[in-house]
Formats: sequence, structure tokens, C-alpha cells
Amino acid sequence: MVDKKLGGAGLRGQSAGETSLCTVGKSGSGLTYCGYDVSDLADNATFEEVAYLLFNGELPTVDQLATYKAELNGMRDLPQALKEVLQKIPADAHPMDVMRTGCSFLGNLEPEIDFSQQNKAANRLLAAFPAIMCYWYNYSHEGKEIDCVTDEDSLGGHFLKLLNGETPSEQHRRVMDVSLILYAEHEFNASTFTARVCASTLSDMYSCITGAIGTLRGPLHGGANEAAMDMIERFTSPEDAKTQMAGMLERKEKIMGFGHAIYRTSDPRNVIIKAWSEKLAKENGDTSLYDISVACEEYMWDTKKLFCNADFFHASTYNYMGIPTKLFTPIFVCSRLTGWAAHVMEQRSNNRIIRPSADYTGSEPRTVTPIEQR
Amino acid sequence: MVDKKLGGAGLRGQSAGETSLCTVGKSGSGLTYCGYDVSDLADNATFEEVAYLLFNGELPTVDQLATYKAELNGMRDLPQALKEVLQKIPADAHPMDVMRTGCSFLGNLEPEIDFSQQNKAANRLLAAFPAIMCYWYNYSHEGKEIDCVTDEDSLGGHFLKLLNGETPSEQHRRVMDVSLILYAEHEFNASTFTARVCASTLSDMYSCITGAIGTLRGPLHGGANEAAMDMIERFTSPEDAKTQMAGMLERKEKIMGFGHAIYRTSDPRNVIIKAWSEKLAKENGDTSLYDISVACEEYMWDTKKLFCNADFFHASTYNYMGIPTKLFTPIFVCSRLTGWAAHVMEQRSNNRIIRPSADYTGSEPRTVTPIEQR
Repeated sequence: MVDKKLGGAGLRGQSAGETSLCTVGKSGSGLTYCGYDVSDLADNATFEEVAYLLFNGELPTVDQLATYKAELNGMRDLPQALKEVLQKIPADAHPMDVMRTGCSFLGNLEPEIDFSQQNKAANRLLAAFPAIMCYWYNYSHEGKEIDCVTDEDSLGGHFLKLLNGETPSEQHRRVMDVSLILYAEHEFNASTFTARVCASTLSDMYSCITGAIGTLRGPLHGGANEAAMDMIERFTSPEDAKTQMAGMLERKEKIMGFGHAIYRTSDPRNVIIKAWSEKLAKENGDTSLYDISVACEEYMWDTKKLFCNADFFHASTYNYMGIPTKLFTPIFVCSRLTGWAAHVMEQRSNNRIIRPSADYTGSEPRTVTPIEQR
Repeated sequence: MVDKKLGGAGLRGQSAGETSLCTVGKSGSGLTYCGYDVSDLADNATFEEVAYLLFNGELPTVDQLATYKAELNGMRDLPQALKEVLQKIPADAHPMDVMRTGCSFLGNLEPEIDFSQQNKAANRLLAAFPAIMCYWYNYSHEGKEIDCVTDEDSLGGHFLKLLNGETPSEQHRRVMDVSLILYAEHEFNASTFTARVCASTLSDMYSCITGAIGTLRGPLHGGANEAAMDMIERFTSPEDAKTQMAGMLERKEKIMGFGHAIYRTSDPRNVIIKAWSEKLAKENGDTSLYDISVACEEYMWDTKKLFCNADFFHASTYNYMGIPTKLFTPIFVCSRLTGWAAHVMEQRSNNRIIRPSADYTGSEPRTVTPIEQR
């Protein structure tokens, strides 16, 4: 009989390394990137500034940002071979499998030969991911071969235009920008930790990001905003939401978008995205999705003292912008890539291979019995 | 100033979970799979029996093995769409990028919908990996579109026939079988740990294996046998090997294929593969590659007390069988897949998301300065 060390399960609370990129749940400030509170960045910066911050440690000047955005804007198009690969992926594929494969395939065509190319590789993926997602989506779902280049200035606007083929409103551009900022970085979460373990063997950037996408795909990590959307779409009114949620709790069904592994009383990202959801609801005129979401929030707090995490109001926010639910987690990829790549760079700067041990719980030593006698 | 916890760097010696699959470096037996010493398995089992053992916990009976091999043999061919994707990968791509992409793409076509399909997904990859590697290699390097089905009974023989188009000798089949057994499993090494972190979010089998391939790609993990081959090919004789190695040590160059993160006095796999290298050398008639390898082994032990690990005599062994050096690490994938998949299944059976913490070393809290004032 082996003692289970439950305290150590999943390495919870155990340090697996150092980072200068992020704090999560420290008192006084819920979430910081390189020392900046995420709400300060969401109010006063753009996603490209945050990407620059994570990759370089400092926010850019006007000139640095202009140079950086010009670089990103020149890397948005996809190679023809990658487009042809995306054409071969069926419409019923998991969108995260598409992102993982697009990233991996691009690594064959434009490999990171040595670590001096790490910023270039990260920026290439940052610029290309919206097209990987939208090219496949439009081709497989609408039968359209879209142009992967737009005249949109920001990555958020670029994504919205690629998706719908229409110039997005200034408000939608800004909401997408804020959303990308909120999801950009979150310390040693499972997908980022995957990227660091991969980086610790001195593998290339594409391998690290491909592995992280596969990890984010799991329903315990990414996908909570999609699950939240699936739930609130089934509710017809705030009252119906409360009635149905009571039934779900009674049947012990998992309700996604609430609580957090690290945060204890609130998720600092919720208040920000909730405010945007409300603005979009008013702009839309039909506020029912927002009203239902607020009812869910109140009910979960009143009955379970569980708070909304970043994912819950993202569901209604994205829905108001006309984004198909199945693309919610791929958008997460487009954002979190910045954190993943920054952690890869940090791991490389002071590396030791990540190779833990395990407690053995298996068979005692034994010898092979000839197969005829088994 | 932050104290560096060097003892904890890379989680060395820290338990990250439990396993019943493997022990590494325990006294009395260097390496065991499910309780069986690896040398016992190498002498008295086949690779398919070891795969069955890792996936099921017990060695198969005659009937179970026949059923299992029939299942594997029926899953060897590749879908046409995957062949077309492999055709688009250039000859100068990193072969591990090809394996990573082939695995990821197949996950789009034949997804693991729920965990009841986990054995099927693992077996599908086990059966298909030789073809993914050899189809791409033959197409890109020889301009040949090979048939991905052979009449070879074993996966090792199947790989050799796909690679060369010729029926392999019984001796070569057996050497490949032993090699696949030796590389099959190694506890919480970095690529296996990647697979478990990915599995811990309840992601799918293809994501877990894709991430593990990317991690094995790094030169600190896979690739040591390729690096050993590159080195011994440059030596013209045993004497030349000792002279050149002395120079390499003086220039503090890294010499691959020696020492190990866990083993302290020897790698239990070395004596096994070394014996096969010697047999192949005698069969070949030209024993110089083996003689040079032995000289390297003696020199490193005499001067540095460093022993050969599993990779060093794999270099000459594979070379004697006519395998191109760039395919050494992809063969490692074909073997270690069994360990990776077994760990994914084990992680799922008693899961908690793997989400460690980090020590923060970054900037103090600060506020965003408007961009014009930076």
C-alpha cells in the first residue's frame, strides 16, 4: 500500500522554476504582466504593446511600436503549402487540432534554425495564427478561399475582418484587443508549463508552441468559455437560468466558467470583460444574453460563493461580436501564444532540463515467462 | 536578490506523481518495465509484447499476441490526405518536425473522440509511424511514392522494408526489435512528462503524443545517437578517435552518448546494444566503426569515468543496418510512443491537472506610462 501524497498531486503549490513575467493571485493585485496590473494594461495599452512587453520586458515607445507592428503586418500571409494542408482538414475537425497542425506544419517550412531567430519565430506565429484559424474555418464551413491579408492595423481587427470579410467597428476592434490582453499570460498554467518542459530540452519554438496548443485543448484548461456559451444558450431568461442551474447543481453537473485553481475570491479579468459584455449588449439592443449571464453570476455566488472567472463573460462578449463558439479556444491560442513564447525565451536564458522523478507503485521485480507458458 | 534554489532546478529528484510502469536506476536492476528487467525483455520478448505489456500491465498469451499483431498490421497504411501533406514537406525539413506534423495531422482525420478509444488511438500511431517516417523520407529524398503496407510480421521488420524496399534479414529484424524494446519506456523523462502534463488537462491522445515528439526533438533529449554517429564518422581509426577526443575534451566540447541524468555507473541498455553492434560488425566484415566505438568507450571511462548510455552503440548499430543518421531520432519516436501512451493512460486513470507554481523574480508593481511619454 503506497501512501498517496495528495498535497503534491499535480505539483500544486510547488515551485517548478522562476519567472519574471507574471504574478497570479498575489495580494493587492490579482494578475500582473512584467509588473503591470492587467487592468491597467487593458485600459491603457494595446495587445501589440503587451506582446512587445512580454517579449522584451518593457513597453514600447511610439517608434518601437510602429516598427513592431510593421514587422507583424508583413508576416500575416500563409504559404500556399500551408493553405493546401488546411484545405485537407475536414469541417468536423476539432478547431484546436487545426491550430496545432497549422503551427506544426509551418515549422517544417520556416524552421527556427537557432535561438537568435526566436523572436522572429514567435512573431511569425503571432501574425499567422488568425489566418490559420480563419482560412480553415471559411474554407471548410463556407467553401470560401479567403485572402489572408487585410488592411486592418491591429491583430484583433485583422482577425475579425478575416473571419467575417467585413470591416469591424471600432468598438469591436477594441473589445477584441482587450480580450487578447486578458488571455495573454498566466504564469505556470499547464499549457505554459508544457512549453517550458519542451523548451528545456532545447527544442525549437514551433515544437514548444505546438505542445502548448495540445495542452490548452483539454477541457480542464481551454474551452471553458465554449462550455459557458453552450450552457447560457440553453437558458431562455434570467429566471430560467436560475431554475436550470439549481437542477444542474442538484445533479452535480460541472458548471464551467466559475472558480479558479489559484484565485480565491475573484478573477481580476472578470470585471473587465463583463463591462465590455454589457456595452455590447446595449449596442446590440437585445440584452438577454448579458442579463442571463448576470443571473448566473449572482446565482453561483449566492448559492456556492463561486465567482466568475475570465471565461464566463467572454462567452456573451464573443457571441455579441458574431464569433462562432467553436473558435473561442483558438482565439485563446492567438493571445496566449505571447505568454508561451515569452516563457520559452525565459526558460532558454537559464536552462536546465525539466526531468522530475516519480513514486513507483507497480509490480515487484519478476522474470519473463516464455510465451507458450503464460 | 533572489536565492536560487539550484537543488530544485528542473525538478530534479522531485516527485511529480506516481507510476506503475517503470523504475530507473533502482539498486539491483537498472531499468524495469512493469517489473521486468529490460535485459530480460530484450532477450525473451518482442517489441509488440512490450507494447502490449505497457498498455495492459501484463505480457500477452500466444492468442492475445496474435490478435494484437493482427490489429496493428491492419492499421499500417496512411490516409491519402496524410500522404499528400507529407509530400509537401521539403527534404531539408527536420525529420522530427515531420513526425510531429504527421501525428498532429492524423489527429484531425481520426480523432480520439473519448477515452474509450485511447488504446485504438495509441495502436494506430504505433502502426502508422513507420510509414509516416518512410513515406516522407522516400518521397522527399528519393522521389519515390512507396506502398505503406508490407508483408513483414513485426513493426521492426516493417520499418526496415518500408525504408529500403527490400526484405530485411532475420538478424536485422531482431536487432530492430531489441532496439525498439530498449527505447520504449523511461519513467518521467522530459518527453514523457510533457505527455502527462498535456494529458492532465484531459486533452486527446494525439495532442499528448505530438507534444512529446516536440520535446524529444531537443538536443538535450533525443538526438544523442545522431550526434554520436556524426562524431564517430569523423574518426578514421581507434587511435585517431582517442587523439581527437582528447582535443575535444581540451576544448571543452560536448561529447554525446556518454553519462546519464539518473544512472550513475552504467546504463543497463548499453551492454545489450553493444553486443548487437559487435555481431553486426562481424557480419559486415568491416568492423572499424565498432572498433572505433569501443575505443571511444574505453577512452571516456579511463579519462572521465563516463560510461556509454543507450545511445552510443545505437549509432554504429543503426549504421550497420543501413539506416540514414537523420532517421535515428524518428525511430526513437516509434519506440517511445509506447511509453508515452501508457503514461497518458495512467495519468487519466487518476488525474489532477499538473499546474505548478513559480518563484517571481520580475519587476516590482508599476503603472503604465502613456506611450507618448515613454
